[in-house]
Amino acid sequence: MSSTLGEKVRISLFGQSHGEMIGCVIDGLPAGEAVDAEALQAFMSRRAPGGAYTTRRRESDEARVVSGLFQGKTCGAPLCVLIGNTDTRSADYEWMKETPRPGHADYPAEIKYKGFQDYRGGGHFSARLTAALCAAGGIALQILSRRGIDIGAHLLSVGDIADEAFDPLLVSHECLRKASTGFPTLSENAEKSMKALIDQVRAEGDSVGGVVECAAIGLPVGVGGPVFDGLENRIAQAVFGIPAVKGIEFGTGFAAARMRGHQNNDPYEWRDGQPVLLSNNAGGILGGLSDGAPVIFRAAFKPTPSIAQAQQTVSLSAKRDAILEITGRHDPCVAVRAVPVVEAAAALAVLDLMEMN
Amino acid sequence: MSSTLGEKVRISLFGQSHGEMIGCVIDGLPAGEAVDAEALQAFMSRRAPGGAYTTRRRESDEARVVSGLFQGKTCGAPLCVLIGNTDTRSADYEWMKETPRPGHADYPAEIKYKGFQDYRGGGHFSARLTAALCAAGGIALQILSRRGIDIGAHLLSVGDIADEAFDPLLVSHECLRKASTGFPTLSENAEKSMKALIDQVRAEGDSVGGVVECAAIGLPVGVGGPVFDGLENRIAQAVFGIPAVKGIEFGTGFAAARMRGHQNNDPYEWRDGQPVLLSNNAGGILGGLSDGAPVIFRAAFKPTPSIAQAQQTVSLSAKRDAILEITGRHDPCVAVRAVPVVEAAAALAVLDLMEMN
Amino acid sequence: MSSTLGEKVRISLFGQSHGEMIGCVIDGLPAGEAVDAEALQAFMSRRAPGGAYTTRRRESDEARVVSGLFQGKTCGAPLCVLIGNTDTRSADYEWMKETPRPGHADYPAEIKYKGFQDYRGGGHFSARLTAALCAAGGIALQILSRRGIDIGAHLLSVGDIADEAFDPLLVSHECLRKASTGFPTLSENAEKSMKALIDQVRAEGDSVGGVVECAAIGLPVGVGGPVFDGLENRIAQAVFGIPAVKGIEFGTGFAAARMRGHQNNDPYEWRDGQPVLLSNNAGGILGGLSDGAPVIFRAAFKPTPSIAQAQQTVSLSAKRDAILEITGRHDPCVAVRAVPVVEAAAALAVLDLMEMN
Amino acid sequence: MSSTLGEKVRISLFGQSHGEMIGCVIDGLPAGEAVDAEALQAFMSRRAPGGAYTTRRRESDEARVVSGLFQGKTCGAPLCVLIGNTDTRSADYEWMKETPRPGHADYPAEIKYKGFQDYRGGGHFSARLTAALCAAGGIALQILSRRGIDIGAHLLSVGDIADEAFDPLLVSHECLRKASTGFPTLSENAEKSMKALIDQVRAEGDSVGGVVECAAIGLPVGVGGPVFDGLENRIAQAVFGIPAVKGIEFGTGFAAARMRGHQNNDPYEWRDGQPVLLSNNAGGILGGLSDGAPVIFRAAFKPTPSIAQAQQTVSLSAKRDAILEITGRHDPCVAVRAVPVVEAAAALAVLDLMEMN
Repeated sequence: MSSTLGEKVRISLFGQSHGEMIGCVIDGLPAGEAVDAEALQAFMSRRAPGGAYTTRRRESDEARVVSGLFQGKTCGAPLCVLIGNTDTRSADYEWMKETPRPGHADYPAEIKYKGFQDYRGGGHFSARLTAALCAAGGIALQILSRRGIDIGAHLLSVGDIADEAFDPLLVSHECLRKASTGFPTLSENAEKSMKALIDQVRAEGDSVGGVVECAAIGLPVGVGGPVFDGLENRIAQAVFGIPAVKGIEFGTGFAAARMRGHQNNDPYEWRDGQPVLLSNNAGGILGGLSDGAPVIFRAAFKPTPSIAQAQQTVSLSAKRDAILEITGRHDPCVAVRAVPVVEAAAALAVLDLMEMN
Repeated sequence: MSSTLGEKVRISLFGQSHGEMIGCVIDGLPAGEAVDAEALQAFMSRRAPGGAYTTRRRESDEARVVSGLFQGKTCGAPLCVLIGNTDTRSADYEWMKETPRPGHADYPAEIKYKGFQDYRGGGHFSARLTAALCAAGGIALQILSRRGIDIGAHLLSVGDIADEAFDPLLVSHECLRKASTGFPTLSENAEKSMKALIDQVRAEGDSVGGVVECAAIGLPVGVGGPVFDGLENRIAQAVFGIPAVKGIEFGTGFAAARMRGHQNNDPYEWRDGQPVLLSNNAGGILGGLSDGAPVIFRAAFKPTPSIAQAQQTVSLSAKRDAILEITGRHDPCVAVRAVPVVEAAAALAVLDLMEMN
Repeated sequence: MSSTLGEKVRISLFGQSHGEMIGCVIDGLPAGEAVDAEALQAFMSRRAPGGAYTTRRRESDEARVVSGLFQGKTCGAPLCVLIGNTDTRSADYEWMKETPRPGHADYPAEIKYKGFQDYRGGGHFSARLTAALCAAGGIALQILSRRGIDIGAHLLSVGDIADEAFDPLLVSHECLRKASTGFPTLSENAEKSMKALIDQVRAEGDSVGGVVECAAIGLPVGVGGPVFDGLENRIAQAVFGIPAVKGIEFGTGFAAARMRGHQNNDPYEWRDGQPVLLSNNAGGILGGLSDGAPVIFRAAFKPTPSIAQAQQTVSLSAKRDAILEITGRHDPCVAVRAVPVVEAAAALAVLDLMEMN
Repeated sequence: MSSTLGEKVRISLFGQSHGEMIGCVIDGLPAGEAVDAEALQAFMSRRAPGGAYTTRRRESDEARVVSGLFQGKTCGAPLCVLIGNTDTRSADYEWMKETPRPGHADYPAEIKYKGFQDYRGGGHFSARLTAALCAAGGIALQILSRRGIDIGAHLLSVGDIADEAFDPLLVSHECLRKASTGFPTLSENAEKSMKALIDQVRAEGDSVGGVVECAAIGLPVGVGGPVFDGLENRIAQAVFGIPAVKGIEFGTGFAAARMRGHQNNDPYEWRDGQPVLLSNNAGGILGGLSDGAPVIFRAAFKPTPSIAQAQQTVSLSAKRDAILEITGRHDPCVAVRAVPVVEAAAALAVLDLMEMN
């Protein structure tokens, strides 16, 4: 089902951008897992709107777990997490049904749902839903952390400006947490340049794309499965659930298509009683299975489609061309706030595969 | 499940590289659909080994449908397709369990399956399984074709050598069929240069990666779904089921991450009684739904991991470093034969989503 | 997943008896379906506690739809329905972890969830969850009704006292609604005798079992599927989701095991341009598919396991035998309030199969 | 999907009664499990036709495992099992499309599949498919047996003649195997009387129904899940996959509906360091979870619908009433051969739930 992810740990997202609430149900979590509400809130606040480099919509994104916990721990029953939509201004959006926004799902949704879709703010297609994804993923991250697995991401690029990359073999816990406070880069220089670029595109009434790089360390060897349920398939399915993602690559990814086999293959060495990889071009995944090296992938985000510049579209009722000028509050670069969302999506995929292993 | 794909049209792959048979079961196909056995065989022969630029393993890859057809048409019962493994030489592969091949699933599979995996030729992880994927996908393509949907792919690049790309707005039936005979490029120049490069890397005992570009035309607007079951999620899940794929991108993909919103958004125009897209940076997909433009994506293939050059690995039993020299028959560039496999994977994802719509 | 039902129309139940809320998410409903909140509330009130012949726990069971509706109709996004637990008295139940109640899930849940289960009132295993099932099923019933499909049930027996049965061929809309107000029997005599029996068992500190009979009319021919996804498989999976159900039978059911083929087979007659069944021993289902006759089944409910009489159990901490005396509010016959729940479960199974057809 | 069962251990059945082959794919079996081919064949021969009290169709039902095994053990890859249809006489069945057989799926299948169904011998709806179910279930039984779990069934009744029942608390391995050779009853008296009755109904050109009782011993406490994936839901879904099953009940089942709570509740006693049940009215299942007592259920089989007596049906092409006289080879009582099939279905449900636990 479209808003459901996972086989054993299964999440079901619900809500629309301007409805009463959004949230998720998480079924199949192991019992006895503590959920640290404060840590969850801190994780979610990394995604929450309000910062200078994000939308000015202000919502606390408070996640309220109304089932599935007992005495602070998972009790085997499904968790339901509710997040209120407190700062919605529906009047802003009524023209959306009439003049579909370029780059948004407005027009295909109008056709698919025969005109019954909730068009306000993109409805169920809105990036607002990533708050619910973060709630679920934040809980998954806490569980994985107790198993020695850490997942972290950073903003690898905005437009042409690049952050330094994770070291594919040596990425550490410290490294994974580096981008989790403040602006999500590893390097301060990248932060400055990216902020300047974002300021500029906002001033131009425009937006810009970016790439998020994510790594997971501590996975035991052999997590995943062949063919359709490998780590790549499942992480990709989860990550394409984040609006604006248009590409994903693991390890050397598209660069591998330009390489020779002798360069791209990762040799083994016998060290400390086990085989150890000497490079990590595979991004920690061979045949869909974790190979012991860090799992590394990158997700490409397109520029925010909502821009202030006038755009050409159509009037569906007048059946003619139209010019659209979008006002309101929008992130000039969705990739910035997407960093914890990518972590959340990866965590859900990894936890489900581990529970199925 | 790992070797199962789809919700309503569900395929279940089976077999190992050097087992008796491989094949698939396809459940949920609509009844009354003709299966043209000759056309299916022709499609599968595009993937079959034996050409000068592929492995020298020779198998006819004859697909035998043993259930699900009645009087030449689907009868509502699941189809089972069998493909014999006729040219297996198990003696070639017995060292695989002992000295895991760099770039292959050998080592993580050893751990995951506790030493019980069929290590001969990669077992169930082998690219041999793509013959079964092609059988299922070839049937899906025939069904889609009767609905006016055509899916085709070509070899966009090998190493640094690039074919011309599909025109994202104007890709036609003719264009989609152009790479379906002979070497799978659109341009003859690219063909020549790629062949030369492949000859060279083979002579060096090496291999090279490549990119396959695929397009689907004729989809009605609104196929797919939000969040986790959109066209991107499902095509990605299917395409990462092809061994050696390390990345996928839709429309402008990773390039979108460098673009501005006003460049990447696709404007609409009112034409012939409906909205028409004036560009196709989205790759035909908005919010997981088809938007009426051609669906376009690219998959990155890493270089074939089996190379003749000596490689560093370990001996699992001797618990020490080892040098591996792989002999035998291997494609110097897996992306060449992967072209129809990508079409097959895309067709299965699209057909399933259409049947669920 | 354990609390998830359905393939295309998929519901995910959550909540525990004494948690903050229970509810459900319904994904995959067709867009554009009106949800009549008053009719839904009226349906749910048939299940709600508070009547003389049910538990004295008093809860309004108000279903609040917080997502998935727009302008009163389904919008394609998942519906989330919340129901508060307003009259919980947790102090009543703290001994449950310690001395497992006979006939309840307390002991196996303690083992399965390693002591972390929410033991208050049975937690997620509680019949309280059927309120959420009714919310989802009540919406499904409204959708089915607009397609000419009506589903109704009645209390066929309590202990040895029997109501009149549905006429398997002639059951009508009027007939299906007859038991939907007041005490859920077709016959007034049965109502009187059942009430007397229930009064008696309550006075004895005991409980009694019962059978609910359910029929669905108006299904087109051919709904369902062969082997594992037929009407019988799916209705059974849904109905066994209601606590205390210990058996289900379709058509003549267990009585068919005593019959001869020439008695049990339902002959056809050509009437009004189509084949019509002359009897309905099959309960409207052949090979898992609807055959045009009313779908009829019966579900057996065991007596409420919570009884006032002293019962023999164990003390898990003291590791010795113990005597349990349950006080509190309990239905003397769960089958009474289960009547609409059976309708709800059947509606969800039927709607999902119709959407998959 | 209709012919697919299970979440982690998932089987996919294929084939039609008079097609080339039937079989199944089993995905998700743990690696390293030996498959004893002889024992599997012996199990399947219990279902095979050919005995005096079954159909006279003669087929060896040889199960050929063509994938998923390596050196005699499961290797983590899906198993494909093929069974040839060697004794089909298609000429016998061509009238089936034209004059639907009462009690068979012929007419609803004609509608569902729009006339494209394989009508020969019931196609995919045929009881012939239970050979494939037995192949999969026979493998599951071998795996369960190594975990100390034994599943066995017997013919509890044919028409009004009853075998002795399993003792619900004391059923033993010996007891479970008692009906696995020769005619499948526990008592010799029942065997004689049942055979006489079957001889009689065959002579009358008629058939008769029966009940199969099945028990599983050795399950640890806590296998299963709440709400929709409990042992009852899953066993029911599997068992209704056997043609002719019209009812299922667990423990006291429908009899519980006539009982009082103090009779039906199973008390606990502290014995040998754990709680032990003093009766087993629950059939070993509380809240969908195994409670430590034997799991016991009964499945009701209707009389074979194919009978020699003339029956009233319709001619679909002539659009008028018709008389049908079925010749050919049919079991007078399908319940006889169904005994191992019920064991197989139960084993698949139990193994899947154990692997998901």
